[in-house]
Formats: sequence, C-alpha cells, structure tokens
Amino acid sequence: MSQYAPSGALFTDLYQLTMAQAYLRSGQTDVATFSLFVRNLPSNRGYLLFAGLENLIDYLENLRFTDEDINYLRSTKQFGEDFIEYLSGFNFAGNVRAMDEGTPFFANEPVVEVTAPVIQGQIVETYLLNQVNMQSLFTSKAARIVHAAGGADVVDFASRRAHGTDAANKFARASYIGGFAGTSNVRAGALYGLPTIGTMAHAFITSFNSEIDAFRAYAEAFPDTTTLLVDTYDTLKGVDAAITVAHELESKGHRLVGVRLDSGDLSKLASITRGMLDDAGLPFVQIVASGGLDEFSIDSLVKNGAPINAYGVGTKAGVSADAPWSDAVYKQVAYSGNYVAKLGMGKATLPGPKQVWRCYKKDDHKILHDHLTSADAQPPESDATPLLREMLRNGNRLGSAPSLESVRDRVRYEISRLPESTRNLSGPDTVSAVVSDGLTSWRPKL
Amino acid sequence: MSQYAPSGALFTDLYQLTMAQAYLRSGQTDVATFSLFVRNLPSNRGYLLFAGLENLIDYLENLRFTDEDINYLRSTKQFGEDFIEYLSGFNFAGNVRAMDEGTPFFANEPVVEVTAPVIQGQIVETYLLNQVNMQSLFTSKAARIVHAAGGADVVDFASRRAHGTDAANKFARASYIGGFAGTSNVRAGALYGLPTIGTMAHAFITSFNSEIDAFRAYAEAFPDTTTLLVDTYDTLKGVDAAITVAHELESKGHRLVGVRLDSGDLSKLASITRGMLDDAGLPFVQIVASGGLDEFSIDSLVKNGAPINAYGVGTKAGVSADAPWSDAVYKQVAYSGNYVAKLGMGKATLPGPKQVWRCYKKDDHKILHDHLTSADAQPPESDATPLLREMLRNGNRLGSAPSLESVRDRVRYEISRLPESTRNLSGPDTVSAVVSDGLTSWRPKL
Repeated sequence: MSQYAPSGALFTDLYQLTMAQAYLRSGQTDVATFSLFVRNLPSNRGYLLFAGLENLIDYLENLRFTDEDINYLRSTKQFGEDFIEYLSGFNFAGNVRAMDEGTPFFANEPVVEVTAPVIQGQIVETYLLNQVNMQSLFTSKAARIVHAAGGADVVDFASRRAHGTDAANKFARASYIGGFAGTSNVRAGALYGLPTIGTMAHAFITSFNSEIDAFRAYAEAFPDTTTLLVDTYDTLKGVDAAITVAHELESKGHRLVGVRLDSGDLSKLASITRGMLDDAGLPFVQIVASGGLDEFSIDSLVKNGAPINAYGVGTKAGVSADAPWSDAVYKQVAYSGNYVAKLGMGKATLPGPKQVWRCYKKDDHKILHDHLTSADAQPPESDATPLLREMLRNGNRLGSAPSLESVRDRVRYEISRLPESTRNLSGPDTVSAVVSDGLTSWRPKL
Repeated sequence: MSQYAPSGALFTDLYQLTMAQAYLRSGQTDVATFSLFVRNLPSNRGYLLFAGLENLIDYLENLRFTDEDINYLRSTKQFGEDFIEYLSGFNFAGNVRAMDEGTPFFANEPVVEVTAPVIQGQIVETYLLNQVNMQSLFTSKAARIVHAAGGADVVDFASRRAHGTDAANKFARASYIGGFAGTSNVRAGALYGLPTIGTMAHAFITSFNSEIDAFRAYAEAFPDTTTLLVDTYDTLKGVDAAITVAHELESKGHRLVGVRLDSGDLSKLASITRGMLDDAGLPFVQIVASGGLDEFSIDSLVKNGAPINAYGVGTKAGVSADAPWSDAVYKQVAYSGNYVAKLGMGKATLPGPKQVWRCYKKDDHKILHDHLTSADAQPPESDATPLLREMLRNGNRLGSAPSLESVRDRVRYEISRLPESTRNLSGPDTVSAVVSDGLTSWRPKL
C-alpha cells in the first residue's frame, strides 16, 4: 500500500484523464453538456427517486488535485508534463442543472446535466454516476419497504452487509429520506444528524448465565429505552422472561419499549407474542421483527395481519438485493454549441441539453405524464412544471442546501403524487415521457 | 450535516454501544470469543475466497474514539457519563486468528476469530462483517469471471456502478487479487499500487467533427497505448477508421494496441473485426469487449470462440449482481472460558473457538475435505493443514503484511487446488467440513 492518502479527485476512471490529455493537446477544449439518466428502470421499479445531489455539489465545489496526487500521477509515467501541470491548477467551474433531491424520475429523463469545458465535464463523470446511481437505488428501495410496511416503522440495520462504509453511510441517509425512522449506524447518525436506533444482539444474551439475567442487566442500564431480543434459545420462553422484566420495570416506574423477534415464523410468533403481552397487561410493549426482511416479506406479513410495530431491515435492503444496479449513464449531448449523440446499437441517446416537464391530473393531483424537450423549449403544456433547475453556476452552489427533514418531507409528498400502479412491488406500471419532435428527428452530420 | 468528521470508530451499530454500557454497569466484562463465518454459501457459489484481512488489521490497530466522537456521543444523551469516559480511553487489545487472505472457505467455517474483553469484541463486529463480507464476495466474483475468461485479460471498469467509493476501491483491489489485470479506478491504483488501465469514452468521439478525427487526436496523445472505441456510430465503419489510424501509427513507428467493442452482438462483431484487422496486416491489434458483461456472458463468448483478447467488466461485476450479499455472521462462541452458542430457530451456531483443517488428495493435490474442530484439538488427520493462525496479539499485528502480488499469487494457487466442480459457474458442488463430535454434542446449560 502506498504511504499517502489519495484525494477524492483521483476517484475517476483512467480514461477520463487520458482523454483529457488528448483533448488538451488537440485544442478540443470547448464547452460540452453531459446528461445523467437511466436508460431503463431496473426490474420491479415503476419509478426511481433522485438522490445524491448534496454529495455531487460538495464534490464539484471542492474538486482539486493535491500535490501528492500530482506526484502520484507523474510517477505512473502515463501522462505528459504539460497535462500534469494542467491538472495541478484544475478546478470545476461549470454549471449544473438537476432535479431536486427526492424527485421521482423515469427512464430516459436526465436527473443531472453538467455544462462545462469538456475536460471538466468528463473528469467528474465517474463520481457523479457512482453516487447518483447508488443513492437513487437506495432511496427507491427504502421507499418500497416503507410502502410495504403500511405505517409501521422501519429501521436501517444494514451497516454490516452494505458494500463498504460509504454504501452503509449513504444507505442510512437514503433510507431516512425514503421514510425510515432511523438507523443503527452511529457514524451515519453523526454525519447526517439521523436518529440512531438499536436493540441488542444474541451475543449479549449468551454472555450471561441466563437469558433473564441478560435482560435485567440491559433494562437496568437503559430503563426507558429497552427492547429485548427474545429468540436466542426458545422464543416463547424469551417472551415470558421479557414479561417478567417488564413488570419489574413497571414496579420502578419505567416501561419496557419492545421485544424483538429475529427468527422463525414471524407472523405466527408475533401473534402469540402480542397475545402474551396483552394478557400480561403490557399492551404498550411493541413488537419489532427482523431477519432477512425486505419489501416482499414485509408485505406478506402485513397482509397476514401480523401485529408487528416496527421492522429492522438489513441485508436485502442495504444492497438493494432485487435490483442492485441500474444502467445509469452520463452521455455527452452537446459540444461547442452543437447537439451531439451516440448511435450505438441498442444504446442510442437523444441529443442536446434537455428539460423534463411534469404534468399532474386535475382531480387527484397525481402525475399524468412527463415531457422531454430541449432545455430552451417553451412549456409543452401551460401547467407543466419544469423539473431541472440550476444548482451550480461557474462551479459555485446557488442557494443553500435544504435540510434533511425537508428532503424527507419532499419524498413523502412526491410519492403521494405517483400513480398507485407505479408503486406496485412487482410488475409496476411506469410513466413514459413524451419526447418532443425536435429531439427525435435530429441526426448527427457524419 | 454536522460540521465534524466522525472517525471510523463510530462505524458501529448503536446496539454495540448500548450493550457495552450494560456490560460495563453489570460487571460482565470478561474475555469472549467471536467467530465470523458464512452460514450458507450464496447461490451459484461452491466456495468463497476470504478477503478484507488487511483492512481489519489496520482498523483494529488504530481504533480510537476522537474527542469529537466523544462529544457527539455525549450530545445524543443516549449514554451515561461513566460509559462515555470508558469510551474515551478505549482501544482494542485482543487477539485475532484468521485465515490468510485469499484462502477458499466453505459454509460454517470461521474465517476470523476474535478473542478479547467482550466489549471490545462486540464493538468491532459491524466493521469486520462489513469489510470481510464485501471483499470476500468481490474477490470470489472476480475469480469466477477470470475463470470464465479462460486466459483472456479482465479489467475492472466498475467504479461508476459499485455501491459508493469504498466499494469501488475495494472491488478494484479484490478483483486484482482475484486475477484481474488491472482497474480503471485511478484512486484505487494510487491506494493499492494497482495497474490502471483505460481506453476512451463515446463522449470523446462525439466531441470531434468526425470519428477519425477523434481517433487521430487520441493516437497522437498516446501513440503507444491507444485502444480505440469503435461503436459510437457504426461499428464496422469504426473498425475501418481504426485500421486507417493503425497504419498511420505504423508509418511513424508506433503500434495501435487495440479496438474496443461496447455494444451489439459481441461474438459476431469480434469475428468480423478480427478478420478485418488481420486482412489489414494488423494481427497484433487486440480486441477488447465490454458492455454489461459478467462470468455468464463471457463464458458464452469464450465457448462461441469469439476472438476477444480482453474483457472490461463493470456493473454486474462490481455489485456481485448474481450474489450481492452473503449471510456472514459474527457470533459469540465463548465467554469467560466457557463455550456458548445461540439455538434460535434455523440459526443455531456451533460453540467454542475453532480450527479449520484442510486435507488434500494425494494424487492431484486438490482439496479432499475440511474438518471443523475446537481450537485446541489435535489434528484430525496427520497431514491436515490448519487454516486459522494468529494475526494480532494484544491488539498488535504479528509479522508484516504480505505484498499484494503475493496475495494474488496465493489466490491463483489456492484456486488450482479447488475441486473442478466447485468452480462451476452454475450449480457448483461445494466442500462440507466434517464437524468434530465435541462441537455437535455440546448443549448450553440453561
């Protein structure tokens, strides 16, 4: 391992830098526009929620190659000294239009458009795709799980199974704006100001001579915030022990918050547990369920009427297991004032900077359809709402970052305006953007 | 967002800290052992390759809560001042036994065992699982792709689609030890000393007035390291233009390295392209294929005899798309000198610190079977090789880190000793460890 910490500016594909050298040497350095969009929604997705904007803005505002980065690049002998010199003075001075974070989007709709000298626009591709793709997938996955939970709380337990620390932290944030109640990830809590939530692990129980000793020790340390994990040995005996401890807490003026079921037939166990708690005069003790859950299994529990108050989701949520990738791309659509586009087989793109317009139904205010036009086109309908707005000008942020809570509120509101059938967990409908004639009729001069 | 940068020590689940406070207050602070293992191999996996050891060691050696972390934890009002004080002096002083990085492992075999005061052993769970799970999945995915490529080079193009920057960097390293030739990710190249490799993007082509102008500009900037992307407009016309540029390079004493196909019927296009290049006297120009490839599509290309010299893989590789998660767990197996275990429904664990022993066949030196015994058991067979060895003692590393190249060599060697059928891309066989009687007969005293 090298002894220096490469900066985030090096988080780019090598070809972004080699192309940059070739652009520089050939004098091909005019302003270009790049569109970030998803060609096709992943399976089971009728919509995605745009996320990652804040990281994108932070990255673009602070993008610099450090002296050590420059030394590293020089040491690879892959570049000329003219280009190395150029990079040492590099910063991002372009304009960025984007959707607001939390906006639903559909296939072929740009969520970010970068207009900058072509080298600048190109070097930032890798990070922008990496973050927008991941955070949008995560926010969308979370919204599906919240939808399935039908009003019960959902908590992020994914830190141990997400792909690395960045994914774990971003899933915590994405799932919160997607409607989760909080996260178990303390670092994400500190980074983003998220509520942190936790219960206890089986190891806590197995450290003590008996389950009830473990329960009592935890309840003593946290008399008002204890949720007891009851399935280490025998679930229903665990519930009995939890009831004993709940009564002991009550006698001291405290209340047990909940019990957690982490294995077995959760629907059946939740019903029996609810009955036992109610019979013991503990209707306020909540039931938390966990263990390999996702929107499909939660939907089934909810439809079975399982009396579960909160779900902890980890593995399958934190990797967006049923749709771990999208085909998000970042394509050049203009260069030096002219439209450009790729024609490649099955992967053709639409030319030019664009605007996405959204029209809503008059009666229920749900999305009617979208339009995709040139960026400078007139509104295609009088009440169409433009979704892309300027976020950075000359490399500087316009306005201030919205609070996390306001983004979360926007997601909830935006989801309420989605057609019901786009929210189906399987085989959802989607919204197709009406593409303006000006975009489809264009052909490159070859 | 908060104004401070929380340290890696906070990358833990909240319950690790609440349990720690309860342990501390109840005086339950003896030494415990925790085993990290996978209960079941993911679908399509006959083996996994252990990876992540170096990050684990770095993390454990340097684990400290900063003053700012402590202030943050105090601000949450979730903990008592006694526990906050304890954390401010926290470090990891335990012992760790682990497999060497790159060792194949099977279901139920511990790859890491941590023996430490219970609070220390517990707090590190989240990071250890996060990294070992991810890096082992990634290394295994890479080895499958290398296997399918049958001798052709494979290059990591996954940075834009991996789940975040940590995953992208770790996939670059994991795929290199798994046999890839290099990565497009410059930051990972700098972090780990990996070969960085790249070609060009469609945007480079669309920036110029014509495809051949773009080809010429790139070849002039990199006369000895150019691979031309030929599918932006019409693939076979792109190959024609590449041939022209290859001849121009030859006349100046240089050689075109390759052409890249990124769309269409890759098998058919590669055959036609190979013929065109050979007919033009350019047998040395290589064909690189990319575009949504994984081990399954590469296997099919190889079986079709497609004349492809190198594969660039991104999306499906970098998220381990067919197996994006494992059920890796970290379970307490001993406390205060006594065996412990969890019995939960369908999730029972084996008690006690363990050793994994590997026996090889006499004839072809491939794995015959494994044994799982107590850590202090005698060798179950005279020529059994123990796989877990001490890596940290009292929180300090024993010995020095192996070079990346030596880990990569070990992976290649270890894979050569796997039974062929465990390497099948679909429906592989696996190796079941023979579990010693002492482990299966044990029951907790409840």
